Amino acid sequence: MSKPAAGQAAIIAVGTELTADGRPETNGTIITRALAPLGYEVAWRAATPDDESSLAHALRDAAARFELVVVTGGLGPTVDDVTREAMARAFGVALRHDERVFASIRARYEHYGRPLPVTAARQAQVPEGAEVLENDAGTAPGLLLRRPGSIVALLPGVPHEMERMLERRLLPRLPVAGGRPAVVRLLKVSGLSESDVQSAVIDLFATGAPSDPALTLLTSPGEVTVVVRGRGAADVERVFAESRRRLGAHVFTEDPRAGLETAAAELLAARGWTVATAESCTGGLLGATLTRVPGSSAWFRQGWITYSNEAKIALLGVEPGLIERHGAVSAEVADAMAGGARRLAGTDVALSITGIAGPDGGTADKPVGLVYLSLATAALTRSTRHHFPGDRDNIRLFAVRTALNRLRLA
Amino acid sequence: MSKPAAGQAAIIAVGTELTADGRPETNGTIITRALAPLGYEVAWRAATPDDESSLAHALRDAAARFELVVVTGGLGPTVDDVTREAMARAFGVALRHDERVFASIRARYEHYGRPLPVTAARQAQVPEGAEVLENDAGTAPGLLLRRPGSIVALLPGVPHEMERMLERRLLPRLPVAGGRPAVVRLLKVSGLSESDVQSAVIDLFATGAPSDPALTLLTSPGEVTVVVRGRGAADVERVFAESRRRLGAHVFTEDPRAGLETAAAELLAARGWTVATAESCTGGLLGATLTRVPGSSAWFRQGWITYSNEAKIALLGVEPGLIERHGAVSAEVADAMAGGARRLAGTDVALSITGIAGPDGGTADKPVGLVYLSLATAALTRSTRHHFPGDRDNIRLFAVRTALNRLRLA
Repeated sequence: MSKPAAGQAAIIAVGTELTADGRPETNGTIITRALAPLGYEVAWRAATPDDESSLAHALRDAAARFELVVVTGGLGPTVDDVTREAMARAFGVALRHDERVFASIRARYEHYGRPLPVTAARQAQVPEGAEVLENDAGTAPGLLLRRPGSIVALLPGVPHEMERMLERRLLPRLPVAGGRPAVVRLLKVSGLSESDVQSAVIDLFATGAPSDPALTLLTSPGEVTVVVRGRGAADVERVFAESRRRLGAHVFTEDPRAGLETAAAELLAARGWTVATAESCTGGLLGATLTRVPGSSAWFRQGWITYSNEAKIALLGVEPGLIERHGAVSAEVADAMAGGARRLAGTDVALSITGIAGPDGGTADKPVGLVYLSLATAALTRSTRHHFPGDRDNIRLFAVRTALNRLRLA
Repeated sequence: MSKPAAGQAAIIAVGTELTADGRPETNGTIITRALAPLGYEVAWRAATPDDESSLAHALRDAAARFELVVVTGGLGPTVDDVTREAMARAFGVALRHDERVFASIRARYEHYGRPLPVTAARQAQVPEGAEVLENDAGTAPGLLLRRPGSIVALLPGVPHEMERMLERRLLPRLPVAGGRPAVVRLLKVSGLSESDVQSAVIDLFATGAPSDPALTLLTSPGEVTVVVRGRGAADVERVFAESRRRLGAHVFTEDPRAGLETAAAELLAARGWTVATAESCTGGLLGATLTRVPGSSAWFRQGWITYSNEAKIALLGVEPGLIERHGAVSAEVADAMAGGARRLAGTDVALSITGIAGPDGGTADKPVGLVYLSLATAALTRSTRHHFPGDRDNIRLFAVRTALNRLRLA
């Protein structure tokens, strides 16, 4: 296979837990995002067991096809850790004991007050021609091998060690990718389905693959992430700005790490508003999501998890007659829960959720997935009715995200 | 590279969102677990963009090395969906329009009341010699191609479509893997660190790779999963039974999908106990985790999220003097919260959590990560003190898992 377009990178993760146990690989997400500003686009990911021959095959294949290959894992001291050996075998170079590296490993074990394992010298084996990348957060040094047409980097598998070495040791050593760097812009939307978002912006992108700029939509319950990627900065900015304009108030952030709760928190803090919650089917997930935000004690006061009807009546002052007439899952009860929570907590705003998360408890009239949300302020208490798809977890997540979006828009 | 041991399988996931956007790949976890009972061990995972040439390369490489190759994604109707074309190209077979398949796709769009896309006929393209796998949950049919020495299966990328096709269409068509099937046994432990678990059982496993049976430990906050895998059923059972005996009451399940909340729920339901929660730093996450369990309304009554001191006093009847003397993060306040919640909810048991999740708010005396948990029953209210590592999310998850483990052991 011929060399693909300049700027393409591969990530190889090493560890039997990723293959035989099927554990999802997450280091790659961090690496992918860190490489983008340098113009590298990840175009291949692989995971191999702790097996020297399989990894050597993967290394040779990736180095022949991609400008940059980043490997994570298998750099520890045990006999299971074979990434160094696989690199030497893949590229036909010798492994040599490096006394300076060994001294620094020994010093690091001393610093942590841990005994030096009998196999520690394995970590001081350096393939001929490779540069050593110092590890500030652990004992396993990384390695960087420059090959004709390809750079191969080995990083530790432990996420916080990997991330520090990536940022401090690897990125500063990488050239900007051969082609024009890729420009990536991202925004997140709530309150629209994936197909709504696609219909709103698809005409901005050329049809047929590959399109430049290209559009990717990532969907999770209650959120759609819009990614615009291309080689021409002006084109990407133009298409991104127009997408953003068309999606309007549905856009809640351009930060890949921010959730709806972060966006809502910023608005609450800016206005000096305080908030309380009253939850039935979500059982505390709305409160838990809001309080994920550091510093949330500035605006989050209190919440009630009123799972039973008795709790709704006793804790939030919901009238028993309302539940009898309309049922616990109704606009009227949602409003009474939000109003009660706001009154009792003395907050500027309160949110309530009541619904049927399933798998049991649905009827023809009130099916699984039916959820009422209400938002109470001094001016107004207003409920909305929703029918969310999917299983119990999905319905609860949809309900929480939709409630956070209402809070943000209020 | 020569063919590896019998029973090894590869998984290839297709989609630009997995490479260029770095999204973690999760279908592979489900496939890995479903294949194990048939004796297949996953020994290779790869992700490629929606790119015909790259995927054809991946298919050829995997089919030459593994007995079974399962591909997910890229079977939709759009021009980005190139998995069918890549299979035809990789193995040099022609694509043919299948009128019977097309009729069933058309019927499916009608059933969902969706207009037939102009490109729908793409989904009726069948590589010569391939068997069509019916899709009960969506429009994209799967494909199965038997090659000399290797079976290649194409499944949709949408998780619930993939899972249904895997179970109903693919697994029944697969032979038991060539070698002796691998036997996998798993248990989950709480209340011990990864190194505690390793020390307890490591002597049961041969040192040096590869060991058979082999041990893998998977760690997440407050939980360690122990996986024992081998080719000899008797050996695996012997080592697994002895591991289980040594880990004793720390073991909470053998079900890979069950969490601590499931284990606690079973015990609560069996005893007919009811439960209430009072949370500060976890902001509702304990309630949300308990109520993830379907049918939790049978034993979960209510919960309070008392984030502010005022809320602890007003809602749970915590004495203001206790907070003044000991601080909100203290054994005394944790006990008062649990006792108050139990009394007000009238439940058999109540759990409370108060702590400093950070990143701010820590002091030398009370650092970030300090958490008090209390559990109140009719007989006893008792708190425990913990210092959890990691960031805000990690500390909160540790606190919730540790509280659930106390509930389970009570």
